Amino acid sequence: MAEQVVIALDAMGGDLGPDMVLPGAALALSRHPNIEFKLYGDAPRIRSLLSQYPAVAAKASVHHAEIAVGMEDKPSQALRRGRRVSSMWQAIEAVKRGEAHVAVSAGNTGALMAMAKVILDTMPGIDRPAIAAIWPTLRGESIVLDVGATIGADADQLVDFAIMGEALARCLFGIERPTVGLLNIGVEEIKGIEQVKEAARRLRELRLPIEYIGFVEGDDLGKGTVDVVVTEGFTGNIALKTAEGTARQLTAYLKQALNRTLIARIGAYMAAGAFEAVREKMDPRTRNGGVFLGLNGVVVKSHGGTDAFGFASAIDVAVDMVENRIVEKIAADMAVKSTLSPGPVAEAGAGV
Amino acid sequence: MAEQVVIALDAMGGDLGPDMVLPGAALALSRHPNIEFKLYGDAPRIRSLLSQYPAVAAKASVHHAEIAVGMEDKPSQALRRGRRVSSMWQAIEAVKRGEAHVAVSAGNTGALMAMAKVILDTMPGIDRPAIAAIWPTLRGESIVLDVGATIGADADQLVDFAIMGEALARCLFGIERPTVGLLNIGVEEIKGIEQVKEAARRLRELRLPIEYIGFVEGDDLGKGTVDVVVTEGFTGNIALKTAEGTARQLTAYLKQALNRTLIARIGAYMAAGAFEAVREKMDPRTRNGGVFLGLNGVVVKSHGGTDAFGFASAIDVAVDMVENRIVEKIAADMAVKSTLSPGPVAEAGAGV
Repeated sequence: MAEQVVIALDAMGGDLGPDMVLPGAALALSRHPNIEFKLYGDAPRIRSLLSQYPAVAAKASVHHAEIAVGMEDKPSQALRRGRRVSSMWQAIEAVKRGEAHVAVSAGNTGALMAMAKVILDTMPGIDRPAIAAIWPTLRGESIVLDVGATIGADADQLVDFAIMGEALARCLFGIERPTVGLLNIGVEEIKGIEQVKEAARRLRELRLPIEYIGFVEGDDLGKGTVDVVVTEGFTGNIALKTAEGTARQLTAYLKQALNRTLIARIGAYMAAGAFEAVREKMDPRTRNGGVFLGLNGVVVKSHGGTDAFGFASAIDVAVDMVENRIVEKIAADMAVKSTLSPGPVAEAGAGV
Repeated sequence: MAEQVVIALDAMGGDLGPDMVLPGAALALSRHPNIEFKLYGDAPRIRSLLSQYPAVAAKASVHHAEIAVGMEDKPSQALRRGRRVSSMWQAIEAVKRGEAHVAVSAGNTGALMAMAKVILDTMPGIDRPAIAAIWPTLRGESIVLDVGATIGADADQLVDFAIMGEALARCLFGIERPTVGLLNIGVEEIKGIEQVKEAARRLRELRLPIEYIGFVEGDDLGKGTVDVVVTEGFTGNIALKTAEGTARQLTAYLKQALNRTLIARIGAYMAAGAFEAVREKMDPRTRNGGVFLGLNGVVVKSHGGTDAFGFASAIDVAVDMVENRIVEKIAADMAVKSTLSPGPVAEAGAGV
């Protein structure tokens, strides 16, 4: 029997708050009977909604929080207003205290990351956390990180991201030796920025237990050339949003075009199943979880605009990470790294 | 009557060389009767092919070049082997000598940019050139630069890119005041890298004759939120290739899905016109031209794998740039900039 997984939910996160979080929890519970919930937020509102979800009510405790962090709050503002008293803070703090295995929130990314850093701190040897995205590809799915937490990562941080992303790929995809690539603008040795070239040299020379393949380019993301694509947060975030935008753009073109003539409309009707299949493949809800990596605890970010289906997917990701012991996996690899490159790692770990 | 435009063609560039360049020239000539060509490359081969394109033959001179730069040659290698004696070099040199208004090549980008920099040099006040892409959007088309020439541009270079991209948008789209945005990872003031924030400050404060709108994000590229998107070459190149890859990925998904059932195949057949319309909108051939900006002369890069149709589009772009006097437009804006911010510009221009 699978062990119990306790999930702290920020019930107030996302555009819809508890109205989306509770049905999402119900859906996830139907897939993972071994989970239970700690629900943080407006207790009266949560309790009155819970009556509609008796299965969740049976596996959940409710914890009142005065404040809900707004979707537009700046991180500094959220930390000022929401320290200790917000549902977001308390959900993360439950992980810190060992009362929950993982926190899931659809609240705003900047605030969630700021609080997670303050409460959980980065793991020994890791300078800065990363946000990992699960990217749909022609081969299946890949991990892409960082997509926005760490702007301008240096070579050592990029190596850490490779370690963290590789561990996540093992947890989520169940493959033993995921392949890892560094995002760059060409395969020629002379191309790319210094940090990326230096990270490549280290990944080749350190002999970490990582299947480092080499440089990949922007079009390798959709191809799924490697299981893990490593980049710093500025470029990763722009790549992520560019891909999302391009997918929406093509969908919009197609809709316009299919509406233009009667025969095209009939054809579109007949091929509706096919369009549905493509929509499912590209549906951000099915891989709805920005995963925070590099912290002493697991936090999963769900899209703010998601529905119950998407939120349940984020819980799925959280469960996979806990059951596969992501933090231990990363810690083990970081320990290997520290024996291989005593310089920078010892330095970063000195204060721990 | 339109004035004559003389176009220097690297006849050996691209995967197919003259077999693609000459029919491309013929197609462009049918659209622009005011153009003539200087063809650089393997003269016997070009002359024998020209017999099939009498209209081109009547408007072209042939100039023999010993060397064809290979599509895989590194820039340094191309410069060593191809200096003076390659078709690519000679086409650019024709612009330098004033014998042609513009050079067009489907040869490899790195080599073409390296030679263009050596032969033409950057314009007064401009540190480094940029490659601009013409990006299909839901609103029409936008200019995105830099997509790979200048890695890690500083704030002053980003301002120069804004000036150059804005001038190009006026030339190609015929709009009087194109809107300009800086690519960033969020609209919050605290986000983004230092160079981008500093460039934003200068674009707001300098009061250049530019319609600077503010930050845009990756998904604004496909939306067409602004006419000109400014970024440094590393991020721009990755965004470009990510978008291309995502478009191919969706097309592949759709093909698979439409082939899966008989009824979907019939529907797809009926909607074929609609698919064709979308394909045309996303067809890289119709906007096939990476434009080199910031040099003392105009060079247009066509995709290496393009066909005659695509190469003709690159020639179209070249003609538009010449007829609309892109270099003069940029020079005029740079002159305005130098009066507004004497510091960095005077410095950069000191050696000219």
